[in-house]
Amino acid sequence: MDIFLQAAVEEALSGQREGGIPIGSVLVHDGKIIGRGHNRRVQKNSTILHAEMDALENAGRLSPTIYQECTLFTTLSPCPMCSGAALLYKIPRIVIGENKTFMGAEELLKAHGVKLNVMNDESCIKMMSNFIRANPDLWNEDIGEAE
Amino acid sequence: MDIFLQAAVEEALSGQREGGIPIGSVLVHDGKIIGRGHNRRVQKNSTILHAEMDALENAGRLSPTIYQECTLFTTLSPCPMCSGAALLYKIPRIVIGENKTFMGAEELLKAHGVKLNVMNDESCIKMMSNFIRANPDLWNEDIGEAE
Repeated sequence: MDIFLQAAVEEALSGQREGGIPIGSVLVHDGKIIGRGHNRRVQKNSTILHAEMDALENAGRLSPTIYQECTLFTTLSPCPMCSGAALLYKIPRIVIGENKTFMGAEELLKAHGVKLNVMNDESCIKMMSNFIRANPDLWNEDIGEAE
Repeated sequence: MDIFLQAAVEEALSGQREGGIPIGSVLVHDGKIIGRGHNRRVQKNSTILHAEMDALENAGRLSPTIYQECTLFTTLSPCPMCSGAALLYKIPRIVIGENKTFMGAEELLKAHGVKLNVMNDESCIKMMSNFIRANPDLWNEDIGEAE
């Protein structure tokens, strides 16, 4: 597995060990991780700290030009909020661990010229499908789905 | 002015008094404000706490069905990130103070059936245009625009 996607998986597993939703993300610039994050819904009772948002927040305030040279790695297809954040900051490329358990706003991203690499990595699929099966209510809350 | 839009303006002015970017938002459910927020880029060095995101975060974890009965009020047309958050949680209506100084992702929202009420309120326009004129770099950072 790509080392940066692996780092996103490690973030997801770190979140899972905290009792949270196992989704992780890293923001990479010039071959270096400049922001790491994972979903914090449970840990911080946060409704906006999806993994990608957490990684962007942890990267700190950056010059607008830096984002335009970044790649965002995420274990799961990015939801409309996280996709919108990528569009706001004009992040040109997103590497996605998998989109089998959840299909995010990939069409929107592609329509704006964002390059997507969907890996459909088996370990990412298994991590997420196991979580969703065991925690359907928490998962539905995270994606705003009424049961 | 609508009392809820006025509450969003008060949030914006509160942010301005803190030295921040004057954009405010409130989330309203069943005639009551359940979340208030304002842009926290300066105050918290946050890249994701736009006003609408701050209001959503401060509302806390809600049942998915609650969001679907909410109206989001914001002093400024919502950017792609904040629009994406509204889409994630299926918020059906957004009242927008103005879209003259900045046009957010209104077409995306409308394409997904979100009802928008754009007030183009003079006080909102003046507040934002004064801020942008005095702080062009900070403003460009907030909307991810390279100079």
